[in-house]
Amino acid sequence: MTREGTSVSSLYFMQTTTSARLKRLRYSLEAHGVGALLETHLPNIYYLSGFSGDSGALLVDSSSATLFTDGRFTIQAKQECPGIRTRIHRGSLLEAVGEHLRKKGRNRVAVSPSRLTLAGWKALKKAAGSSVKWAGVDGIAERLRAVKDPFEIQCLRESARLGSEVMEETIRQIRPGVTELEIAAEIGYRMRRKGASGESFEAIVAAGPRSALPHARPTERRIGKNELVVLDLGAILRHYCSDLTRTVYFGRAPVRVKQWYQAVLDAQLAARNVLRAGVSAGTVDAAARNVLQHKGLGRYFVHSTGHGLGIEIHEDPRVARGQKWSLEAGNVITLEPGVYMEGVGGIRIEDEALVTPRGAEILTSAPREFIEI
Amino acid sequence: MTREGTSVSSLYFMQTTTSARLKRLRYSLEAHGVGALLETHLPNIYYLSGFSGDSGALLVDSSSATLFTDGRFTIQAKQECPGIRTRIHRGSLLEAVGEHLRKKGRNRVAVSPSRLTLAGWKALKKAAGSSVKWAGVDGIAERLRAVKDPFEIQCLRESARLGSEVMEETIRQIRPGVTELEIAAEIGYRMRRKGASGESFEAIVAAGPRSALPHARPTERRIGKNELVVLDLGAILRHYCSDLTRTVYFGRAPVRVKQWYQAVLDAQLAARNVLRAGVSAGTVDAAARNVLQHKGLGRYFVHSTGHGLGIEIHEDPRVARGQKWSLEAGNVITLEPGVYMEGVGGIRIEDEALVTPRGAEILTSAPREFIEI
Repeated sequence: MTREGTSVSSLYFMQTTTSARLKRLRYSLEAHGVGALLETHLPNIYYLSGFSGDSGALLVDSSSATLFTDGRFTIQAKQECPGIRTRIHRGSLLEAVGEHLRKKGRNRVAVSPSRLTLAGWKALKKAAGSSVKWAGVDGIAERLRAVKDPFEIQCLRESARLGSEVMEETIRQIRPGVTELEIAAEIGYRMRRKGASGESFEAIVAAGPRSALPHARPTERRIGKNELVVLDLGAILRHYCSDLTRTVYFGRAPVRVKQWYQAVLDAQLAARNVLRAGVSAGTVDAAARNVLQHKGLGRYFVHSTGHGLGIEIHEDPRVARGQKWSLEAGNVITLEPGVYMEGVGGIRIEDEALVTPRGAEILTSAPREFIEI
Repeated sequence: MTREGTSVSSLYFMQTTTSARLKRLRYSLEAHGVGALLETHLPNIYYLSGFSGDSGALLVDSSSATLFTDGRFTIQAKQECPGIRTRIHRGSLLEAVGEHLRKKGRNRVAVSPSRLTLAGWKALKKAAGSSVKWAGVDGIAERLRAVKDPFEIQCLRESARLGSEVMEETIRQIRPGVTELEIAAEIGYRMRRKGASGESFEAIVAAGPRSALPHARPTERRIGKNELVVLDLGAILRHYCSDLTRTVYFGRAPVRVKQWYQAVLDAQLAARNVLRAGVSAGTVDAAARNVLQHKGLGRYFVHSTGHGLGIEIHEDPRVARGQKWSLEAGNVITLEPGVYMEGVGGIRIEDEALVTPRGAEILTSAPREFIEI
């Protein structure tokens, strides 16, 4: 074994990190008045145990943590979570967990109604029997994950840097005549060559009228002259996502396009300026929205201003209209106002911000001024 | 607009295709004795309506189909599903659907307990009120999707061909010293250059002892001499997935590795030979499993023999131990036996098979003989 993705020292580090997280989780379980958490959401399981397999459940109580997974992940679980008991099951995962719980007879096991399917819940309840009492509580682990620890902030910084580099290189490279898909191929390739394990979502490359679709998938459409091109991309580096968007123009842009661009940039700046620990997410959304409304573009801003990100591309907090979530130091969110004109095109500018007590620290770095290619 | 991803003629085609599918769905609703289906699973929604956005719900009754989505997808829904009524909501999707249903007062609306979260179900039921009666039925649309129509088989053929080409090119190109991630980057790049919209899953490139992890993520590990390398990849082309695996050896392989390889190949061939319409999925699994057991390798085959694929990478039917699902002409499944030796390495060979009345037609084409590089 010459070089391993997971070295002995990083395993040791992961183990001490997950121990600290499990400790925080146990405080939270106490505060919620529950005896145990049955975690079924894989990103939460990775956060709490280090296990990165595609199927599993994690049972955490005041003194122990048990990972349930299947034979495909026996070796991987052993490597990734040396401090955690592992149970390999055949057949249904939730039935196996239920049967395990039946033998113990537990009181107030928390499960997340937003993460369990109705069918999964029924199978679990049936297998566990009447000696297990349940509590439906959403977001216990998600709430912990919203405040990033120093290790996570480091990962997010590096992922944001990688994404920003790829954005700059891609913009320098694109020429009229190239297809959206060819650009998307470049983006994915460059990310992986720089060490990303993958993309945090399929990159959006949307040119001309297609740029008016906020979630356009790349097509074989060729980029022509006098068109807007929206590039929205993100990498996964050491399990952490990045996410940024730039909009460029092919040719000399009409005055109104430049005005729209400036309005979107001003909206982002307004959001960035109000951002700091203690401010509500809704206030940040309103700051961006007000700028666009003031310029008569409010109805073209058809989505929310941003979202948290970390192990997942969309996490708490949502930065949307009326959101009361009080931002905390350690939250990492996107700021991504945009305007979309059917039949014409769209403009979006997106960066990542780390919330600090004094304001926003921007993690993404590609230039934001209007670029005409 | 010079060239569009969705041309007028393909839109027309999609519309007639989805009409035919909605017709089949309505027969199925009648057979289940339900008045309407509330579909919440996005691949099912794409299948039934052509809508490919990231958020939505589709309500189908005996005479109409209504798509619910949000402002990010207004333009896209209009373009993708011209024959279907669209309702744009703010706030919670399922609450919007529930409120719509409340006004109509419906009888026996089918929802899928495996696709609805417990929280989503509660919100839906509350918003709909007591005038709506529900029926929990899983797999109505999935069952239709398991039998591919001629358009889908054509898409799957092309996606399989693209994946096979990328596999052959990648194997020709890899050299000792290259990292797993660099190979994964090549795979993604080549797929998109050939017109894939993306990968059907993050390609697995696992070398040396890491090849013993059936679901290994690529790392910065360099491929050395005398190592097994498992390559498992798939493309998404025109919304349809492909999936194939090859295992190669760097250097001159020891006799036991060649014997393992031959055993896995024999297992796949055995599965392929029993495969035809009318045979149960469990019989196909048993055919592969028996070969490996006979060679003393049964306990190293830690997963099932295959799975259906189409719009999703994992669909019905599961080709696993004891599965009673009777295979039908038009099912498309993978055949992917493998053996995994902890600390040594793994071998998997995976191809896609279209089930026909007379047997299996293999859709993937990269060579299967043992390759030493």
